[in-house]
Amino acid sequence: MVTLEVPEVRPSIGNVQEAIGAMGRAARAAARVLANAPRARKDAALEAAAVAIRDRLPHILEANARDVENARAHGLSEAGLDRLRLDEARTGSIATGLEAVAALDDPVGAEIARWRRPNGLDIARVRTPLGVVGVIYESRPNVTADAGALCLKAGNASILRGGSESFASSKAIHECLVLGLEDAGLPKAAIQRVPTTDRAAVGAMLAMAEHIDVIVPRGGRSLIERVQREARMPVFAHLEGLCHVYLHAAADPARARAIAFNAKMRRVSVCGAAETLLCDRAAAASLLPPILDDLAAAGCEIRGDAATRALDPRVVEATEADWRTEYLEPIIAVRQVEGLDAALEHIDAFGSHHTDAIVTEDVAAAARFLAEVDSAIVVHNASTQFADGGEFGMGAEIGISTGRMHARGPVGVEQLTSFKYLVRGHGQTRP
Amino acid sequence: MVTLEVPEVRPSIGNVQEAIGAMGRAARAAARVLANAPRARKDAALEAAAVAIRDRLPHILEANARDVENARAHGLSEAGLDRLRLDEARTGSIATGLEAVAALDDPVGAEIARWRRPNGLDIARVRTPLGVVGVIYESRPNVTADAGALCLKAGNASILRGGSESFASSKAIHECLVLGLEDAGLPKAAIQRVPTTDRAAVGAMLAMAEHIDVIVPRGGRSLIERVQREARMPVFAHLEGLCHVYLHAAADPARARAIAFNAKMRRVSVCGAAETLLCDRAAAASLLPPILDDLAAAGCEIRGDAATRALDPRVVEATEADWRTEYLEPIIAVRQVEGLDAALEHIDAFGSHHTDAIVTEDVAAAARFLAEVDSAIVVHNASTQFADGGEFGMGAEIGISTGRMHARGPVGVEQLTSFKYLVRGHGQTRP
Repeated sequence: MVTLEVPEVRPSIGNVQEAIGAMGRAARAAARVLANAPRARKDAALEAAAVAIRDRLPHILEANARDVENARAHGLSEAGLDRLRLDEARTGSIATGLEAVAALDDPVGAEIARWRRPNGLDIARVRTPLGVVGVIYESRPNVTADAGALCLKAGNASILRGGSESFASSKAIHECLVLGLEDAGLPKAAIQRVPTTDRAAVGAMLAMAEHIDVIVPRGGRSLIERVQREARMPVFAHLEGLCHVYLHAAADPARARAIAFNAKMRRVSVCGAAETLLCDRAAAASLLPPILDDLAAAGCEIRGDAATRALDPRVVEATEADWRTEYLEPIIAVRQVEGLDAALEHIDAFGSHHTDAIVTEDVAAAARFLAEVDSAIVVHNASTQFADGGEFGMGAEIGISTGRMHARGPVGVEQLTSFKYLVRGHGQTRP
Repeated sequence: MVTLEVPEVRPSIGNVQEAIGAMGRAARAAARVLANAPRARKDAALEAAAVAIRDRLPHILEANARDVENARAHGLSEAGLDRLRLDEARTGSIATGLEAVAALDDPVGAEIARWRRPNGLDIARVRTPLGVVGVIYESRPNVTADAGALCLKAGNASILRGGSESFASSKAIHECLVLGLEDAGLPKAAIQRVPTTDRAAVGAMLAMAEHIDVIVPRGGRSLIERVQREARMPVFAHLEGLCHVYLHAAADPARARAIAFNAKMRRVSVCGAAETLLCDRAAAASLLPPILDDLAAAGCEIRGDAATRALDPRVVEATEADWRTEYLEPIIAVRQVEGLDAALEHIDAFGSHHTDAIVTEDVAAAARFLAEVDSAIVVHNASTQFADGGEFGMGAEIGISTGRMHARGPVGVEQLTSFKYLVRGHGQTRP
C-alpha cells in the first residue's frame, strides 16, 4: 500500500468540524430516504453515473493528468503513479463496474431466514441497510466509484474521503455519481465526497459516531492503525495480509509448484499474496527445488531457514522478523516445519488471520487445516490470490476484513447490510 | 434495571490491571482450546455443571441468603431483592437452563452457505467462535450461568464480571461451572469470574481489546453508557427499549385491546414492554376506551395528549419528555396521530430501535410499517413482549442488541459466533 507522499489539498471549507458535521447530518437524512428507495431507482442512479463517466471522459482524463503531474513532481514512485493513472480503458472499467453493481441483486429486504413458532408467530430475518458508511482511502481513483456504488446498492449513504494524490480525479468521478443520483431523483447527499484532504477531516469523521455507522479504511498501515485507534464506531479493515502457503508432506508436487508460485507472484502487491511458504521437512527436498527455481527465475528474493538454505545457495538468511513481514514485494520467506501441528502453530503465531492455504492430497490433514486455522479465508489446494470478492462471486468488494465482527473476508453489498426481524402474528399475546 | 446500591466487594486480588491482564491471557489460551473442542465435550461440561448446581443447592442458597441480607441492609428495594433471591425452584431453573443450552445445536462449524464457482472452487461459509466474550452485569445471579453457558456452547471463553449485590451467589454458581469444565477436561479459564467488584476491573476489561473480542453489558443505563463510551472493542448492548404499539385505524378492536394491554402490563420491567401507545385519531374514540379501562383497572398510570385526556378524565397530561421515557413501570404514554406516516415519524423521532408493533387488519399498512420501521424487531398484530430469544426459538439469549453491527435483536449462541470461508480447490491458480 502506498502512503501519502503528496501534500494535503486544503480548499477553504471553513471550519472542518462544522463542515464534516453538516455532511454527517445530510448523510443521515439521505440514508433515511435510501433505506426505502426501490431497487429501480438505485440502479437507475448507477447506470446514469456510468453514462456520465463515459460522457465526461476527457474531463476525467484531464483531471487525472493533473493528479499524475502533481504526484510525479512530489516524487511518487513509478508503481504509485501507475496505480493513480487513468486512461480510456481504465475509465471505461469504472463505468462498467458501476453497471455491474447495478446488476447485482438488491440485498435490502432480502429474507435471510424465516420460520414459524408453535404459537403461530411467523418470524423473518430480512436485510436492512447499515446506515451511513465512511470510507477513507488513499491513491486509487476508482475507489471513489466502487465504494460509492456498493454503499448505494446496499441502501447506505456514504461519505468518501480520498487521498491527496487522486484529489482531482476523485472529484471528477464523484461529480458523475452525483449526476446519476440527481437523474434518478435520489438525494445528492447519498454519496458525498470530503472536499479537502486536511487530515483534521479524518479525525472529525472518526469521532462522529452519531452520523457514521461504520468506517472502512483502505490504505497503508499508518492509516489503518490511526483509524482503528481513533474510530468511535465499528471499523471494517485489514491491517495486513500475512498469508501462508503450507506444503504438506502429502502435497501433489505439480499442484504445490503451481500454487506456491501463483500465490506469491501473480501480483505481489495484493493483500492475498503469499508472504511465507511453509514446507514439511520430510518432503522439502522433493517439493521445494522446482518452486525455488521458478521464484528465482521470476526475480523473487528468497529468504529461508537453515534447512532451506542448505537446499539452495540462492536462498538468503531469514530472521524471525521475516515471518512477521508483509512484503508486498517479490520477496518470500521459506521455512521448513515438522508437520501439520508445527505449521498450524507457525500460522497462529505469525499470521494475520487473512488467508492461508494448505496443499495436500491427504483429506484428513486438509480437514484439520480448514477447521483449525483461524483466518477469514482458509484454502485447500488453491492459490491464496483468490481472496477477492469478485472471485468469490460477490460481484464487487469494498475491501477485505480481518476483523471477526459482522464482516469477515471480502466485504461486498451483503456485508454492507444489517438485518431486522419481522414478526407477523394474528393477535398473539405473551402468556 | 437496578443500579448498584450495594458497596463494592474488593477481595485482595493485588494489582487490578495485572489481575485482569492475566485473566485475559488465560481466556485467550482457553479460547484456542475451545475453538476446536468437540460438541460432546462442551455439552458434558454444561451437564456436569447442572449436576453440581443441584448437588450444591444448600451451599448456593446459603451464599444467596448472605447476598440478600447484605443488600437489604444497604437498602435495596423489594423489587431488587426479589430479582436477587434464589430458592430451590429458581436454582433448579438455572440447572435446567444449562441443560437446555447443552441440548442446542452446536453452532461451531455449521455451514451457513456453500456455493461453487465456475472455475470449480467450492466455497463454504462456516461458523466459528468469536474468541473471548466479556460480560459485565448487575444483580441477577442466574446471568452467571446463562452467560457462561452460552459463550461456552459457541466455543468462546468468557470473563464474567457480576455486580456486588449477587457477589456470593455468583461465586457459588461459578464454582459449579468450573467443576463442569474440569469434569469434561476443558480448561478452567474457559469461564472466568472477576473476583472483585472494584470498578477499576471494569475499566481494565474495557481497555483490553487484545484479549476481549466483544463486551456484553447487562444492567442500568449508567453501566451501558460507560461501556459504550470506554470500550475499545465491539459492544452488544441495548441502552433502552422504548417500544411502541401503534393502533392503526383498521385495527381489530379485540386484538388491539389484548395486544396493547399485554405489551404494557405482562411484565412492565422487561425491555420489550411497551412504553408508548400511538393511536390513529380517526379510530381513537372506538379503540382506546376499553384499553384505558383495562390499564387503569390494572393500576397503570396513563399520561396522554390533549385528545386522549378529552376521552378519559383519568388520563394525566403527557409532556414531550414522556415520549422519550423508558418507564419500566406501570406507566404508559398515549398519543393520537394522524395516520401511518405520523406514527412512523413519531417512532423514528422518539423510539430506541428495539421493538415496535402495529395492530391493523390493513395488509398494505402492515407491510409499510414492517418495511419502514428501523428497529431490531418489528411486529404486526402481536405483543412487543415476544422480544426475547427464547420466544424466537433461539433457546436462550445473553441479551438483546439494538446495535446494527453483527448482532441485532436477541443475542443467542449463533450471534455469539463469527464465520470464516473455506475454499476447496483441486490445484486452481488465479489467472
